[in-house]
Amino acid sequence: MIKVAINGYGTIGKRVADAVALQPDMELVGVAKTRPNFEAETAVAKGYPLYAAVEERRPQFDEAGIDVAGGVEKLVDAADVVVDACPSGIGAENRSMYEEHDTPALYQGGESADLVDVSFNARGNYSEAEGADHVRVVSCNTTGLSRLLAPLQEAYGVQKARVTLVRRGGDPGQTGRGPIDDILPNPVTLPSHHGPDVNTIFPDLNIDTLGLKVPATLMHTHSVNVQLDAAPTAEEVRDLLADESRLFLVPASYDIDGAGKLKEFAMDRGRPRGDIWENCIWEESITVEDGVAPAGQGDAAAGADLYLFQAIHQESDVVPENVDAIRAVLGAADADESVATTDEALGIGL
Amino acid sequence: MIKVAINGYGTIGKRVADAVALQPDMELVGVAKTRPNFEAETAVAKGYPLYAAVEERRPQFDEAGIDVAGGVEKLVDAADVVVDACPSGIGAENRSMYEEHDTPALYQGGESADLVDVSFNARGNYSEAEGADHVRVVSCNTTGLSRLLAPLQEAYGVQKARVTLVRRGGDPGQTGRGPIDDILPNPVTLPSHHGPDVNTIFPDLNIDTLGLKVPATLMHTHSVNVQLDAAPTAEEVRDLLADESRLFLVPASYDIDGAGKLKEFAMDRGRPRGDIWENCIWEESITVEDGVAPAGQGDAAAGADLYLFQAIHQESDVVPENVDAIRAVLGAADADESVATTDEALGIGL
Repeated sequence: MIKVAINGYGTIGKRVADAVALQPDMELVGVAKTRPNFEAETAVAKGYPLYAAVEERRPQFDEAGIDVAGGVEKLVDAADVVVDACPSGIGAENRSMYEEHDTPALYQGGESADLVDVSFNARGNYSEAEGADHVRVVSCNTTGLSRLLAPLQEAYGVQKARVTLVRRGGDPGQTGRGPIDDILPNPVTLPSHHGPDVNTIFPDLNIDTLGLKVPATLMHTHSVNVQLDAAPTAEEVRDLLADESRLFLVPASYDIDGAGKLKEFAMDRGRPRGDIWENCIWEESITVEDGVAPAGQGDAAAGADLYLFQAIHQESDVVPENVDAIRAVLGAADADESVATTDEALGIGL
Repeated sequence: MIKVAINGYGTIGKRVADAVALQPDMELVGVAKTRPNFEAETAVAKGYPLYAAVEERRPQFDEAGIDVAGGVEKLVDAADVVVDACPSGIGAENRSMYEEHDTPALYQGGESADLVDVSFNARGNYSEAEGADHVRVVSCNTTGLSRLLAPLQEAYGVQKARVTLVRRGGDPGQTGRGPIDDILPNPVTLPSHHGPDVNTIFPDLNIDTLGLKVPATLMHTHSVNVQLDAAPTAEEVRDLLADESRLFLVPASYDIDGAGKLKEFAMDRGRPRGDIWENCIWEESITVEDGVAPAGQGDAAAGADLYLFQAIHQESDVVPENVDAIRAVLGAADADESVATTDEALGIGL
């Protein structure tokens, strides 16, 4: 059994902990948290060994009547691999500690790509993480784009991807964030960081991204254009994407118009926390238009313009990727084996 | 003086009425409204002759203690041109009435292009409206796109425009509309109607548009990509757009991050109702990336990818266009004269 430690038990950490606990080949040796709150109470209730992420704050747990198994270093030392799910920037501070204990570490997308040996997406570059000591599981948006672009690149060749990311202003629990009644170009300078981040997975992919922030909390939504070398039909693209286990094609017959109904559907299906690990691609939106050949070029050079909308659940789509990254760094399974095991254990596939 | 009647005194009608009243060569002979409400009270307070748009509802005005000058037909008969600002679809019902009175009519973008002889944008196709009996002033979004694409097409040539329209769910007064906490692909099928609508102004322009609806009320925001034949610098594009009177380039130094601050800026400037008649283009967002030549083509064939964000005030950007359309149908002035007169009378130019 692979002994897994989770350092940081917030939005991502608690989900990865639950996912790890479900894996047939993994053992959750414990989770570390900085302070007591409802999430710490829940970790205890679930029987997860709870460790203090910051030694000085350990008394707070005693005051809250929560028994801690020890400090985070004890946890890291006991693990074969540690998943760092701390807030952006804290992972970088933890790096040396993981090295001291010679424990391979996975970080989240909020950390800089320079911090690690390899940035990771299971569909994009699983094998590159094997044997790495420091691996970064890319952000929710980059994960969603990587899952979509990988099969398109393999099947048709991508001339250029142009994506507008209409981002939720904050998660439902992030009550201090906005905007409330606005649409913010964010960042206002272009391209946004998302394109370069996709290039940490696919270095040669030509992609420009634009980001905005809006008053929504449930999911991000991507307005996607992919200029393809080949000119498939929309039907062929649908079939290609439908074969990907982590792409959910929302059927028109489901009458799902946005993230609200997607989340309600996930909850009706009994998904934990209403999580949606898959990209949600509106089947009706998959459209192929004639490409455009530059002035003086023949239509044969035009390729095709693919368009679609996809919604990304920012709180959970990286969870299966973290699980796969655990096996990847330890060389415990190849990509197909790991993805199949993760998907079955979680119940991926809507 | 050009005698102008306004049929429909809601969001657009009341603004066009005020704009017409400010023009040196126009006389507002009256406005027609279906029922008494705060807008009717304001029309009376401003001294605009008020007519009953629906004869059967005329008693409602008496009950509200509002004197009406007569029925709408009397108003239409007294005018050289009528601006129909009724809700979408009602304009089509009014068409025959305008013909009976032999009064040229302007309709709003909510009406079908098939209803009229020509769809109109002052920057795009002013002269085509001369002598037409039925002219449609295109919608706020189409107006905003036409103003932007016209100079780009003239200066650099447009291979293809790809625009994601992040639309406000409803106006501030439309309290029954949503969404509240969601991002809706709308329409979910592609392309949205906006691209074809732009083609009513520029029949040969290659454009694909995607639309979404979000919980915002103040302005629409466009995420714009224009694949150009030529490869100008961002600086050159900025200078080109800065020369257009109805394009406002938002300087970085203004520290305006979205529609909220844009509206506040407009109100600080004393704009009526805080209206913003101009496209608001974030100067910082104007970016030119290398174009992509299809496989096997040289870079010379690539052109360039222009990106920018622009915000469109849905309640007011068509107002100056309606004023210009009045002169256009009557042949009262050429495009440059009319735009200059309209801009000076309204105080366009931020």
